[in-house]
Amino acid sequence: MENGIRVIRGGGVTSPRGFSAAAVGCGIKDPANRRLDLALVACDGPAVTAGAFTTSRVKAAPVRVSQVHLRAGSDVRAVVINSGNANACTGPQGIRDAKEMVKAVSTRLGLRMRQVVVCSTGIIGLPMPMGRVMPRFDELIDDLSPSVDGSKKVAHAIMTSDTKQKSYAIEVELDGVLVRIGAVAKGAGMICPSMATMLCVVTTDAVIGRDELRRASLEAVDQSFNRITIDGDTSTNDSVIVMASGKAGNRAVANGSELARIFREALTRVMLELAKRIVMDGERVTKFVEVRVCGGRTSVDARRVAEAVGNSLLVKCSWAGDDPNWGRIMHAIGYSRARVREELVDIYLGGLCACKSGVASDTPPADLKRAVSRPQVTVCIDLNQGERGYTLYTTDLTEGYVSYNRSEYSLVERVLAERKGLG
Amino acid sequence: MENGIRVIRGGGVTSPRGFSAAAVGCGIKDPANRRLDLALVACDGPAVTAGAFTTSRVKAAPVRVSQVHLRAGSDVRAVVINSGNANACTGPQGIRDAKEMVKAVSTRLGLRMRQVVVCSTGIIGLPMPMGRVMPRFDELIDDLSPSVDGSKKVAHAIMTSDTKQKSYAIEVELDGVLVRIGAVAKGAGMICPSMATMLCVVTTDAVIGRDELRRASLEAVDQSFNRITIDGDTSTNDSVIVMASGKAGNRAVANGSELARIFREALTRVMLELAKRIVMDGERVTKFVEVRVCGGRTSVDARRVAEAVGNSLLVKCSWAGDDPNWGRIMHAIGYSRARVREELVDIYLGGLCACKSGVASDTPPADLKRAVSRPQVTVCIDLNQGERGYTLYTTDLTEGYVSYNRSEYSLVERVLAERKGLG
Repeated sequence: MENGIRVIRGGGVTSPRGFSAAAVGCGIKDPANRRLDLALVACDGPAVTAGAFTTSRVKAAPVRVSQVHLRAGSDVRAVVINSGNANACTGPQGIRDAKEMVKAVSTRLGLRMRQVVVCSTGIIGLPMPMGRVMPRFDELIDDLSPSVDGSKKVAHAIMTSDTKQKSYAIEVELDGVLVRIGAVAKGAGMICPSMATMLCVVTTDAVIGRDELRRASLEAVDQSFNRITIDGDTSTNDSVIVMASGKAGNRAVANGSELARIFREALTRVMLELAKRIVMDGERVTKFVEVRVCGGRTSVDARRVAEAVGNSLLVKCSWAGDDPNWGRIMHAIGYSRARVREELVDIYLGGLCACKSGVASDTPPADLKRAVSRPQVTVCIDLNQGERGYTLYTTDLTEGYVSYNRSEYSLVERVLAERKGLG
Repeated sequence: MENGIRVIRGGGVTSPRGFSAAAVGCGIKDPANRRLDLALVACDGPAVTAGAFTTSRVKAAPVRVSQVHLRAGSDVRAVVINSGNANACTGPQGIRDAKEMVKAVSTRLGLRMRQVVVCSTGIIGLPMPMGRVMPRFDELIDDLSPSVDGSKKVAHAIMTSDTKQKSYAIEVELDGVLVRIGAVAKGAGMICPSMATMLCVVTTDAVIGRDELRRASLEAVDQSFNRITIDGDTSTNDSVIVMASGKAGNRAVANGSELARIFREALTRVMLELAKRIVMDGERVTKFVEVRVCGGRTSVDARRVAEAVGNSLLVKCSWAGDDPNWGRIMHAIGYSRARVREELVDIYLGGLCACKSGVASDTPPADLKRAVSRPQVTVCIDLNQGERGYTLYTTDLTEGYVSYNRSEYSLVERVLAERKGLG
């Protein structure tokens, strides 16, 4: 229990009242076997829904379709998600396929098409294997369950290069009423502000209006998924969907109220927890690093410094090697385009001062090396020019990341497999 | 012979008339042995000099000192360069050390201090081992030679993680008079627009005014060193120094004239050649990639696309794996912040169409794989929205780069070696 927030052990998207979840395997990820790769999260009554999507100019078909549905109205009651194929760079056929998936769900649940949104994650540039996907929707709907198992299956079904399933749920008191927030997410690789190749579905049983849910969601995304980076790349498919069932029966969460403050804090807590887990599960990552910048003249300066440091290949390589090389951090600060004064900068590694006023401190190098050898490291950078700060969550860069990404998803092998495949 | 330009085989900074060069080993790079690490290039009479420096906010001491000297006047006649220590993040002591090096040269050559500039490259954050450097200046001056050997020694002395020395010289006719341009450079690692951890000294015997030399130098840097990238990082020490002796006796190269056009083209040719060699000699690089963007609405859009693609870890990993994964290129285009329309984008790999109008072409994947398997690959991206273009030279990203950069220059070992060392 912290700030009135209680974690629900083993919880997920079905922890809040009013939600069911399901997943089946269509052979999208792997034509040979039947790993789960098609998932559904649905609200069993009217819902209030908000979404945040990739800022990339190259948006996958499901992102385009879902954005239109969420603009049209907020009573979106179901999210259908597939992994293994991103349905990105697939042209008009991709849009038709995404709509086909929406329709398969809306028809069977008795909803209008715009009450369903769709997310995809996986390889870019291959058409969706609709011949394998479409026959499985009856089974998907039959599988819908309000139990924790439904949520677990969704968490597994949306994984791509993730090594761990990611779900989380909490309970918080709003004016004497217990409200729940649950979520599932996938990440790994290509994690960068803003957003990432990440998907996240959040459910809550709070009573909340459309505008306040949208504001709370954007703020929570800004404090969480927009602050994580693994390799500086941003994806075509990033999506966060937040659905509220209103089943908790609390007094409505209204903009500017104390309830709104508590709800935003709780929603941010859920998203930040999943964002951190995404970073820790980054492709072949061995180290989780929190880059905390303070003393900036502006928040933009602080963010620029954090992002330059958190995305520098040389800095990330040095972390992989347990090397307390603050010189590389300084040079990333230098090219960050932030207004910094070198002679004012202090750098702390794991709480130990490595650089004071722009030059080496007298902390013994062996102590600094121990500080950066831990699996979780906090790097604090004080610009000593003002009051603004920014925190970013990042990782080291390993040979394993490179070898994984030079071989995984080889397009040629995938295309050949598709042609020989079951589709 | 091409555009009236003839390459001088084995040429370098001493190919133009009026220049001498020298190098000695002080044990900065390696206290144990005596690899060359202190170099000098000098003009034996009045010179016209221009310089371009890192845009980083964290500038090494030698950069700060040299910028002041070049602003004060253009008759800079000598460049002293050390490798092994960047003299960056070294505070007021670093400035004193840089000036000390300048003074050691100016005194011995009978120049004013402001007629000498200084460059350093190597590890950041350690004080210059002046006790080892200062006793070697007499020998350095004695070593000055107008022969090609002097230039070769400088090219070796400035290397850090470079595996090959980089010198180049050409001859071009200006209004019936043969003018020479020669250069030495070092690079490797941390190569990124704008500039890099790279140093380049260019000499010419052309008669040219200060303003025109400055304009020509900036243009040539923009067309060459600002267009190369290995790992997206920019250094504290990047410097390009261009010295003209006027010994060729040509009609002065004046702004806007035909002579100026020819001279700029020749200077750009020299810098571009060295820039490409720097990329090809990048740390553990196996592939040289030219990213050519055309059809942009503006040059800024074209540049953003080229830089996003050329710096994307995922794209660079796919090149290392000979994977024609144009989907990763598309997603880098997407997050580049350039105004692009996905459905207009064409991507060519080694001349073969991989993506047409935003979707997969029907080129057989095996052919595309062969195209990206070569050691030199050209990636063309046509945005089909206008007439503007931009070209960037980049590399793949290998496990070798990571393992090299996680272990090389380990600060702890360096500091301990320094303490045990000769300094």
